[in-house]
Amino acid sequence: MERFDVHILGCGSALPTGRHYPTAQVVDVRGKLFMIDCGEGTQLQMRKSRLSFSRLSAIFISHLHGDHCFGLMGLISTLGLLGRTAALHIYSHAELERLITPQLEFFCKDLTFPVVFHPLNPHEQTVIYEDRSLTVTTLPLHHSLPTCGFLFAEKPTSRHIRRDMIDFYHIPVCDINRIKNGADYVLPDGQVVENARLTTPAEPSRRYAYCSDTLFHPPLAESIRGVDLLFHEATFMDTEQARAQATCHSTARQAAQIACMADVKNLLIGHYSARYVNEQGLLQEARSVFPHVTLATENQKISIPRIKPSSSQAVLQT
Amino acid sequence: MERFDVHILGCGSALPTGRHYPTAQVVDVRGKLFMIDCGEGTQLQMRKSRLSFSRLSAIFISHLHGDHCFGLMGLISTLGLLGRTAALHIYSHAELERLITPQLEFFCKDLTFPVVFHPLNPHEQTVIYEDRSLTVTTLPLHHSLPTCGFLFAEKPTSRHIRRDMIDFYHIPVCDINRIKNGADYVLPDGQVVENARLTTPAEPSRRYAYCSDTLFHPPLAESIRGVDLLFHEATFMDTEQARAQATCHSTARQAAQIACMADVKNLLIGHYSARYVNEQGLLQEARSVFPHVTLATENQKISIPRIKPSSSQAVLQT
Repeated sequence: MERFDVHILGCGSALPTGRHYPTAQVVDVRGKLFMIDCGEGTQLQMRKSRLSFSRLSAIFISHLHGDHCFGLMGLISTLGLLGRTAALHIYSHAELERLITPQLEFFCKDLTFPVVFHPLNPHEQTVIYEDRSLTVTTLPLHHSLPTCGFLFAEKPTSRHIRRDMIDFYHIPVCDINRIKNGADYVLPDGQVVENARLTTPAEPSRRYAYCSDTLFHPPLAESIRGVDLLFHEATFMDTEQARAQATCHSTARQAAQIACMADVKNLLIGHYSARYVNEQGLLQEARSVFPHVTLATENQKISIPRIKPSSSQAVLQT
Repeated sequence: MERFDVHILGCGSALPTGRHYPTAQVVDVRGKLFMIDCGEGTQLQMRKSRLSFSRLSAIFISHLHGDHCFGLMGLISTLGLLGRTAALHIYSHAELERLITPQLEFFCKDLTFPVVFHPLNPHEQTVIYEDRSLTVTTLPLHHSLPTCGFLFAEKPTSRHIRRDMIDFYHIPVCDINRIKNGADYVLPDGQVVENARLTTPAEPSRRYAYCSDTLFHPPLAESIRGVDLLFHEATFMDTEQARAQATCHSTARQAAQIACMADVKNLLIGHYSARYVNEQGLLQEARSVFPHVTLATENQKISIPRIKPSSSQAVLQT
């Protein structure tokens, strides 16, 4: 199971509209679900996207504005009603625990699982989560209160050992894993066969960067260079650049500029201002700067395919 | 403007489904909006039902289960973003203020309007709200924690004075209001003309009763006798009566029994358990006991018409 999918649950901004939910996404890495932000209505959207509550492993909150976290209490409460026993890990600004604990104590008295809060420092790029196949790193952003994005990166997988070389050199089974992990092979006569001759490269690890909410922030480009998919907020069009600046948000053009600078493979934009009755203007503006842009929409799934080392561009499957 | 409309924003119960929102309703009395309960996603549903945020006057919370109040923070926060200045009145169990205040202080620092909490006693039938045209009275219910329903009742309007009697008795303008309010008229020679001869009756006042969540609770019938519309929770079908009892909820049959006992004009059922893929079974079960039943659905508007004193049954407009 090599799944690396991004599910959009909400891509509106703070003011409600009849068309969008506030921010929430789920990253599905090989069947394990990681939530990014949890705006109001997220649990309802999980149902609509047919995402399993029991596979939810951790929640990452970018910042403590309501449209990014008001869905937490409802979601936790539902996990309790469903009899969850596994711990739920929440990575966020330290303040969240203080704000949510009194409500947890009242509304979720008999919670069947522990909620574990992991305070993060949004000002520093740090690995905050790691398991066998994935790391999650914070990406400092510039917003009206402490905010960070998240970089989801698959860990490198092993190189592929060549069947013909195993036969040719009579390599015993006990040596194969070491060679897959990069070791050379020493023949009985002491001759060294270099790893590059025995193996072909592993598929490159896939990476997804989530950057919302933020002002146009060029230093970000270095931290997300070459990612397969970048979600960058595009709250406004360029005609509202002054408003974007004043509210610490980006325009669609600026999102595309970051995608260009970082040489990412694909750009996904969202966090739309309620003023736009549709997002075609935002899409056109971003595409005029960077070609591979998709508009986020609710209940959309974007699969990031494994790329063969030879091919250059991933084609997203939505 | 004689409007008396009930808008259903959510009619599901605690567990989320792709089909229903948790509980919330808005009663529109002559353009003034009163919210009953405020489950997660209520503000989004207000947009979908095209209800004006600025006309929202007060919120009544039946009890402090999350599916009846987790939408409050998002709604208040949005009212702040919209620059509201009028006070928002919230009538609920006293505990709510303690639970919500820390979040209000953090997420709604620069709130442009006061949030005024009015603690209510859910165990006593009391008038908790009154204005020129309306009273709201609590209806004690039996649930797993202190809970009350709400009775929305129009105040009686004046009787209609008969034009022909004004002319016949030469009644001066200055006496007309007194006569409309029920006074007799005394002629210059001392003869008394009885009010019943001078006027025709006012249209009866309209009443809406909201009863959720609750066990089957027959004493309720007396307090809601003859209302134009009763919303009664019908979480389960009769086959789940033991579960209804254990969780302090009602079945569709029990909701209809209350409607019968109280001789209400129309019954609306909702608060559906997530186990039902559609609600036709609940509807049939209720109809087998009481004929005038409607299933609540999201973004439905039910208008309660003024009835002429002569006609017996209001026809609901949905």
